[in-house]
Amino acid sequence: MLNWDNIFATRSLRMRASEIRELLKLLDRPDIISFAGGIPDPALFPDKDFKQAYAEIFDSTAVNSALQYSVSEGYKPLREWLIKELAKLGIPAGLDNVFIVSGSQQGLDYLGKLFLSPKDTALVTWPTYLGALQAFNAYEPSYDQLTPGGNRTPESYRATAEQNGGKVKFAYLSADFANPTGETVNREDREKLLALAEELDIAVIEDAAYQSLRYDGEPVPPILALEIARKGSIEETRTIYCGSFSKTLAPGLRVGFIVGNAQVIRKLVLMKQAADLHSSTINQMAIAHVAEHGFDAQVAKIKAAYSQRRNSMLSALQKYMPAGVEWTKPEGGMFVWVTLPKSLDGAKLLAKSLETAKVAFVPGQAFFADGSGANTLRVSFSCANDEMIEEGIKRLGNLIASEIAAA
Amino acid sequence: MLNWDNIFATRSLRMRASEIRELLKLLDRPDIISFAGGIPDPALFPDKDFKQAYAEIFDSTAVNSALQYSVSEGYKPLREWLIKELAKLGIPAGLDNVFIVSGSQQGLDYLGKLFLSPKDTALVTWPTYLGALQAFNAYEPSYDQLTPGGNRTPESYRATAEQNGGKVKFAYLSADFANPTGETVNREDREKLLALAEELDIAVIEDAAYQSLRYDGEPVPPILALEIARKGSIEETRTIYCGSFSKTLAPGLRVGFIVGNAQVIRKLVLMKQAADLHSSTINQMAIAHVAEHGFDAQVAKIKAAYSQRRNSMLSALQKYMPAGVEWTKPEGGMFVWVTLPKSLDGAKLLAKSLETAKVAFVPGQAFFADGSGANTLRVSFSCANDEMIEEGIKRLGNLIASEIAAA
Repeated sequence: MLNWDNIFATRSLRMRASEIRELLKLLDRPDIISFAGGIPDPALFPDKDFKQAYAEIFDSTAVNSALQYSVSEGYKPLREWLIKELAKLGIPAGLDNVFIVSGSQQGLDYLGKLFLSPKDTALVTWPTYLGALQAFNAYEPSYDQLTPGGNRTPESYRATAEQNGGKVKFAYLSADFANPTGETVNREDREKLLALAEELDIAVIEDAAYQSLRYDGEPVPPILALEIARKGSIEETRTIYCGSFSKTLAPGLRVGFIVGNAQVIRKLVLMKQAADLHSSTINQMAIAHVAEHGFDAQVAKIKAAYSQRRNSMLSALQKYMPAGVEWTKPEGGMFVWVTLPKSLDGAKLLAKSLETAKVAFVPGQAFFADGSGANTLRVSFSCANDEMIEEGIKRLGNLIASEIAAA
Repeated sequence: MLNWDNIFATRSLRMRASEIRELLKLLDRPDIISFAGGIPDPALFPDKDFKQAYAEIFDSTAVNSALQYSVSEGYKPLREWLIKELAKLGIPAGLDNVFIVSGSQQGLDYLGKLFLSPKDTALVTWPTYLGALQAFNAYEPSYDQLTPGGNRTPESYRATAEQNGGKVKFAYLSADFANPTGETVNREDREKLLALAEELDIAVIEDAAYQSLRYDGEPVPPILALEIARKGSIEETRTIYCGSFSKTLAPGLRVGFIVGNAQVIRKLVLMKQAADLHSSTINQMAIAHVAEHGFDAQVAKIKAAYSQRRNSMLSALQKYMPAGVEWTKPEGGMFVWVTLPKSLDGAKLLAKSLETAKVAFVPGQAFFADGSGANTLRVSFSCANDEMIEEGIKRLGNLIASEIAAA
């Protein structure tokens, strides 16, 4: 056997298996009630619309372009549709500001690649989206804790980054119904974050993967919209907005998008040209077709279903969780974040739960860049019906109660 | 305007626009005869098979999986089909050895990411595939000249790499009908390359994008097949084989594959999980469907068409090129490589040609990692019919003759 570690780049040391992805395999075990995945419910996919979209592509003169190479920036009619949607969110953008990627995960990878030299610092919340940490890790950064609305000074961030051998390059956050916490950053804290970014001269990466999925409460403008309002033009902004069709239409086509000033988008387009040429032409055309023909109706449909499940999940937690357990009350998205008493460990609890309670969830520690958060866990309600939620949370609550008693 | 150069990673300095991609835009100008692209002829796409493939997916119970997230290693039936095909090439492989990527360009990006730390050395031929240089550039390597069959000693490669501040990590080459030269590395030179790789303890990246497109002459076994024959098992090999469906079925779906020992494939799967989760599920299913139902017939069809065009191109070059111009005689692929007298410059010739002769091609210099090769150019015959080839090469030959006379 060759010793490949002699040949691999240093960055490969940080590539490790994802707990979440390993857990996805459990979804196939019929005896397990799973709150682990956080994937959309396939029963809600607009499959008839997609069927029609592909059929129309093959019956039109567009078929040759659908199967051919295409430009790295993405399919123009899809970018034009996005421009109209973004305008509704207070983001006036042009074609030079909108770029198609193969899912917003690819957007995060590209942004890590664009900004991070080894030892540079990325600011992320504790906890944050695990997939963002995995994407950024390839570029060997340090992490420091972002606390939207918190009082850390620019100087303290700068000093820590210098100690770690680099510069602060960006703040990454999911501002609406974040994965994993389900929480939303309020407007005041978004403005504070923009002020901090200004003082640090860094980019803000706004992960908007769940933004369309608000079930109640008042929408908060995207960070990019707030910055455009301050500066007068998207070309003057430092916020880069990453969106996705994975939660609204379907993830299997791998279509997401990045919105930002033209300087950054131009660099990202060059990067994509070198990295995979372009995202699937036919899938971009199919997404454009389905979005144009019924995006709002589809979003309304999934919001109705998920909000009901969110309600059931919050009721069940209220009913079955013992004293000492706390959880978030998300206004949208797919997740509730549970904090256990300090004496409990989410990973150990999962091992026991899979054996006895037969309930799956994601232990929270992996979402913390500093390895803290052992007493937390994430439950998703997106793929569970009311009965599963009632039964699963009941079993999980009983298990936690007995673990607390034993601790 | 923000000064983004303060924030971008150092690697972004090497991200520049591709001449080839910019030139692709010329394909839309009806007055230009283009030999620039090197893309497959859309008239040869198996569009009816793809239409049926997507329709069957939507009419089957597989529709939910087709639209859903899937595993990073790729769609199992497609990997199983590939295993059968690889066996015919002398490559016995298992599921752990085959991994689906979003086009072989993504494979090159991932392999650069896996192996290259800044200042490491990649060995490439002069010239080599421009897209490989662009993919690798993101990881800030040095390049040294690979000459399959040449006599450079391992010591001299090692010494040069050390001078450049790193180690030699891999040799990259397209061994069959290479882009841009159309040339094929013979068996003896493949064996020599394996011996060199052994002595240097480096990987060999075999880009097999054009391998299926042989029009005449004897097939040469893939480098990976030769190495397996030496070592007895794919798990002992250092060759990593990158393949594509872009030239045989269609590029617009972005489906390619990497084949190699399980240690390397495992690392690449983790990398993909972090970079874009997985390649489009529905497209992998459609490719598997079309491959299973008629891969050989489709390859036979395109080989018949392209080999006729290759013949026309070689005849026209013979007929119209003035003395002092040389070109390759490819046994397959899409390209002929033309070497002009030293006094001519391919880029200047292109500017003049677009203006007067109205013929497009790709100047050769961009394919050279050392910036040499100004007197070379690449012509592709894949999208041109006999009349275009006759007329275009006639005009180009006349222009070159008058440039030689003027020099």
